[in-house]
Amino acid sequence: MSRTMLAAVLHGVQDLRVEERPVPELVPGTVLLRVRRGGICGSDVHYFEEGRVGSFVVTAPFVLGHEISGEVAAVASGVKAPVTGQRVVVNPARQCGHCDYCRAGRGNLCRNLKMLGSASTRPPTDGGFAEYLCVGAEQCFAMPPQMDDGLGAMIEPFAVALQALARAGSVASRSVIVSGGGPIGLLTVVAARAFGATTVALSDPVAERRQLALRVGADAALDPRADSFAADVAALTEDGFDVLFEASGSAVALRQAFELVRRGGTIVQIGSFSEPEIALPMGQLLVRELQLVGSFRYGNVWPQAIRLAASGRVKLQPLISGVFPLRQAREALELACVRGGAVKVQLDLT
Amino acid sequence: MSRTMLAAVLHGVQDLRVEERPVPELVPGTVLLRVRRGGICGSDVHYFEEGRVGSFVVTAPFVLGHEISGEVAAVASGVKAPVTGQRVVVNPARQCGHCDYCRAGRGNLCRNLKMLGSASTRPPTDGGFAEYLCVGAEQCFAMPPQMDDGLGAMIEPFAVALQALARAGSVASRSVIVSGGGPIGLLTVVAARAFGATTVALSDPVAERRQLALRVGADAALDPRADSFAADVAALTEDGFDVLFEASGSAVALRQAFELVRRGGTIVQIGSFSEPEIALPMGQLLVRELQLVGSFRYGNVWPQAIRLAASGRVKLQPLISGVFPLRQAREALELACVRGGAVKVQLDLT
Amino acid sequence: MSRTMLAAVLHGVQDLRVEERPVPELVPGTVLLRVRRGGICGSDVHYFEEGRVGSFVVTAPFVLGHEISGEVAAVASGVKAPVTGQRVVVNPARQCGHCDYCRAGRGNLCRNLKMLGSASTRPPTDGGFAEYLCVGAEQCFAMPPQMDDGLGAMIEPFAVALQALARAGSVASRSVIVSGGGPIGLLTVVAARAFGATTVALSDPVAERRQLALRVGADAALDPRADSFAADVAALTEDGFDVLFEASGSAVALRQAFELVRRGGTIVQIGSFSEPEIALPMGQLLVRELQLVGSFRYGNVWPQAIRLAASGRVKLQPLISGVFPLRQAREALELACVRGGAVKVQLDLT
Amino acid sequence: MSRTMLAAVLHGVQDLRVEERPVPELVPGTVLLRVRRGGICGSDVHYFEEGRVGSFVVTAPFVLGHEISGEVAAVASGVKAPVTGQRVVVNPARQCGHCDYCRAGRGNLCRNLKMLGSASTRPPTDGGFAEYLCVGAEQCFAMPPQMDDGLGAMIEPFAVALQALARAGSVASRSVIVSGGGPIGLLTVVAARAFGATTVALSDPVAERRQLALRVGADAALDPRADSFAADVAALTEDGFDVLFEASGSAVALRQAFELVRRGGTIVQIGSFSEPEIALPMGQLLVRELQLVGSFRYGNVWPQAIRLAASGRVKLQPLISGVFPLRQAREALELACVRGGAVKVQLDLT
Repeated sequence: MSRTMLAAVLHGVQDLRVEERPVPELVPGTVLLRVRRGGICGSDVHYFEEGRVGSFVVTAPFVLGHEISGEVAAVASGVKAPVTGQRVVVNPARQCGHCDYCRAGRGNLCRNLKMLGSASTRPPTDGGFAEYLCVGAEQCFAMPPQMDDGLGAMIEPFAVALQALARAGSVASRSVIVSGGGPIGLLTVVAARAFGATTVALSDPVAERRQLALRVGADAALDPRADSFAADVAALTEDGFDVLFEASGSAVALRQAFELVRRGGTIVQIGSFSEPEIALPMGQLLVRELQLVGSFRYGNVWPQAIRLAASGRVKLQPLISGVFPLRQAREALELACVRGGAVKVQLDLT
Repeated sequence: MSRTMLAAVLHGVQDLRVEERPVPELVPGTVLLRVRRGGICGSDVHYFEEGRVGSFVVTAPFVLGHEISGEVAAVASGVKAPVTGQRVVVNPARQCGHCDYCRAGRGNLCRNLKMLGSASTRPPTDGGFAEYLCVGAEQCFAMPPQMDDGLGAMIEPFAVALQALARAGSVASRSVIVSGGGPIGLLTVVAARAFGATTVALSDPVAERRQLALRVGADAALDPRADSFAADVAALTEDGFDVLFEASGSAVALRQAFELVRRGGTIVQIGSFSEPEIALPMGQLLVRELQLVGSFRYGNVWPQAIRLAASGRVKLQPLISGVFPLRQAREALELACVRGGAVKVQLDLT
Repeated sequence: MSRTMLAAVLHGVQDLRVEERPVPELVPGTVLLRVRRGGICGSDVHYFEEGRVGSFVVTAPFVLGHEISGEVAAVASGVKAPVTGQRVVVNPARQCGHCDYCRAGRGNLCRNLKMLGSASTRPPTDGGFAEYLCVGAEQCFAMPPQMDDGLGAMIEPFAVALQALARAGSVASRSVIVSGGGPIGLLTVVAARAFGATTVALSDPVAERRQLALRVGADAALDPRADSFAADVAALTEDGFDVLFEASGSAVALRQAFELVRRGGTIVQIGSFSEPEIALPMGQLLVRELQLVGSFRYGNVWPQAIRLAASGRVKLQPLISGVFPLRQAREALELACVRGGAVKVQLDLT
Repeated sequence: MSRTMLAAVLHGVQDLRVEERPVPELVPGTVLLRVRRGGICGSDVHYFEEGRVGSFVVTAPFVLGHEISGEVAAVASGVKAPVTGQRVVVNPARQCGHCDYCRAGRGNLCRNLKMLGSASTRPPTDGGFAEYLCVGAEQCFAMPPQMDDGLGAMIEPFAVALQALARAGSVASRSVIVSGGGPIGLLTVVAARAFGATTVALSDPVAERRQLALRVGADAALDPRADSFAADVAALTEDGFDVLFEASGSAVALRQAFELVRRGGTIVQIGSFSEPEIALPMGQLLVRELQLVGSFRYGNVWPQAIRLAASGRVKLQPLISGVFPLRQAREALELACVRGGAVKVQLDLT
């Protein structure tokens, strides 16, 4: 293996360079991956466009990317699994396994979490838009033979959706609406359909996203700005949805959510807001006994995400709207920036 | 039994009259109670002071009161329980038992609910500040012999607190803080202590309420306006409370709640807000995976409220700060209006 | 409407007579149904073959049948829903709506439950294998237009399956095996598939049932008596199923269940045993932290059963293996008695 | 620190020797404890009396003991917590933190679990009845200042009881009976009382245990062999207990459990059975929708066990019936063998 590798390094706002970097060294407990596919996430886009994601500011150059599939190139001594040559998907959040949150099965809230491709640390932590990546052995999950590299790199955002489903409680036989048809919202549509929701609707002002929602299994796709919206909702559900997944990060959408769910209903917040505070009709929450639930990344859902994606019962492939070679990482990011244009853009690093 | 009875009738803002009213007639499925004790709720105070509670406006005179204990004076034919002479507490919310919410064990969200002493209907529905009251047989719960009338009339607000506990999930071994030391907040302190919370704190700016919280079982009572507040909290919990019950209806308190709970923590909203919307830090809900949960009245908690109150393991009596005869209903309501003065004021109707 | 009607009346062991009976009278709160389709349940078979179901012994002639769809012929005064002419399915278990079990959302355990077509009362309670049937208004659930009478009469056994699913907790992304491919077992396969189980297997020694399981959505159908059984299981799941539904009522199958589930796994018992006691490997339950859960009839699952059956996403029709006119009720029961022959036999009463 | 230490080593049936052993070496990630107190568990007694616990057979000499409190004597480099000089209690089950069970919050079912003082491995794994013990840093939980060594060594069995409570779901406002008044049963009484059970009863034929149950908080202590048993139960609960904890490992007690719980009730199995199979009335489980739940060791309950024991709200000290110096380990074990005699016997290793 070569001593240097190519990587997509963010140096500042709009300043992404594909350049030589040293191949990371194996440390105890880790494996070295030959990265094969990397998906571009909204946070990659935010880092690229604005140099920050919320309170995380880019203070030094770092490699972007945390939606990764790859092949094991080498393993540290003592590591039993995965083995060299195995194809794996990567959980980019390394949890300690022993803090109180980890012990309680809530490793996404781990006190000692380290996230790939993130400026949450100082210096930032390099990600996976690079030929090689060193990760903890326990961050790797074996890919079934029938799962291709592109689908493998979709597991991370799918895990975000499955975490939201887990936070909602069972959706079996329930009516569900998703507000916001970006990648996470569409993957939530897919998951709600797979988990037995009786009605699955998407709400998004962008026509392309509504069409895609119908392709991946939604019963209905509504335009929240259309005059017919209230009537469209009434045609789907007598007195409101059981569960609403708010995946748009729009304050208007969240406020509307309080009217769209039925008494006792659940709103799961997945999308990030740019505003620090959102004004909400708390009287509704009270007298209708609603619950408003946050969902953050992915708890313990990786094996199920892989099994479900590999089962052939869900359609994730239509969400991959473009694949670029690593050398064109900048173009890929620019495409991903166009809201309502592409859905999921990936980098091919093979 | 007499054909007329005395009742405390609200005719308009600040216009409460104790006057003669016809004794209600028994209809099938009901019992006639000789009311013995009636507690004054915050909603009685709102009707009296402002002529409304939220969107419920007093449009015609009606009898106030829904925290009631009494003795069965007569039963409609076919009613097997309760029996004449039995002392009972009354669930003032009559649920149909057969709609989808009732069937799901969420009778507090019943589609056909009727509430005593409420202007939510037109005309308003009479309540129990009267010598006689006619209620559904299934609204009555037998009082154990050791429970006196005053404690019986505390079961309704205690049921509100127990519903909030039920909405929180188990608090056993968890740290709890209650914001707002009115009757419901203090009863929530009592319930959280009884249900095994390791730490139970109250937060309220009023010193008398803090003292009362300590008397009924709180480990600590904090002044949220004190400079030492942050340090006081830190002394109680390393990284935040597991559960916060917001019983004050204060926007400031609810915003603060997002900082007081730990990652994965739960905020249960019990208090009503006067503002239509409250600005909330939704980013916290998201990245710390909080849940914000509404709690409305009382679901299926009446038998447990009675058992617990009668067990001698909880102290509800210190919360009764005054008892007035029916003829002084006006004076009782005026006392109840003084925030931070009395806690629970009751009417003796015997 | 005529004053008498035809009904299938069980007079004793193997003594079923189709004879004239008076049309039932409307009492307050009820509706009179013109029955259209009635499915034959295992308990009908037991009453017919043995004159008893467990401890319930036939002490007087009664009308069999509790899997019923029909059309409303008349409603008692004051009943608002359903309305005359509406097609409905019937929940044959009338729950009181007000006992502690009903209030807790567990109406299937109602203290005052009355069951159609059952010898659990003295005298027995007539069922629905008759031209007319009088039931509580709240026992009726409207049939969607696209649901035919036969499918309507499948809702009752489907509700049994959905109750078992509800008792299991969420099966989304989990591996499931059903032991016993009678109607309830097959409907459980259908439901587990619809609710997002990753793997759904059936285990039954009868080849026809295994084939039917594959038709209605099972991934695999195993013969528990085959030499290859252990290997077949290992091919489906690395270390055991998450959930096993025991629908055969076979002691051997239940004992085997303890080996088929993984650590922390759940066994849901649906099938009835003829033996009073079953010897079970409790050490397994302990050190592997299993749970063994009973499921009885149908709690609060009727609306979801109807929605799911009407959605077109599940296949219940292949399970109807024969339809007979009421006059041939005896022949229908005899066919239903043949284990491994027919699955669901129905009577057409139109 | 000395190179050798004293330890209580089991060489075979009834062959316990207090002898010199090398002090264990620090390996990465571990700490060396100076053991201060060690409690004798039922499994220590079984190893001593019978040379085995279930399928775990003593094949080589090993140090007994897994209920341990101690002081940190040294820490491996890189270990941040605990620190030298700190007093800690030890979770004797070392879980990997990264398998699917650990990630799901069920570390007690960890695929890679290693247990102190156990013959489940070959050779057996040494335990803590020794002056020094080397354990993983993450197995140590800090002792609050007010917790003495004896109480610290009670945390392990208390954690077993708290796990059983966790498996039962919330017991707040519920009625509870514990069958079997050994240490675990009595600690379960303590925990159920602390967590808000309305009624807590113990059932045990041994009078001393019943008296002790009353001392530590039971409302009632019943003799299951007394003629008055059914009447005693009826005086406590109208129609059965909500939850029964079976801590005796007696087949008779478990069968009786099915009659003692109410419809929908829960039986938690904690005690081990000597018989491979137990005959159970499964019809009861079915028609009354019971659940029978295994509880194994301690999941994620250590911090709460420590907080609760240190809170002063529970009484664990009365359960310590004898403390012996390490040199008298044999006498201590012999005392612990006398059923109905001592409750918890501890070794003082200071």
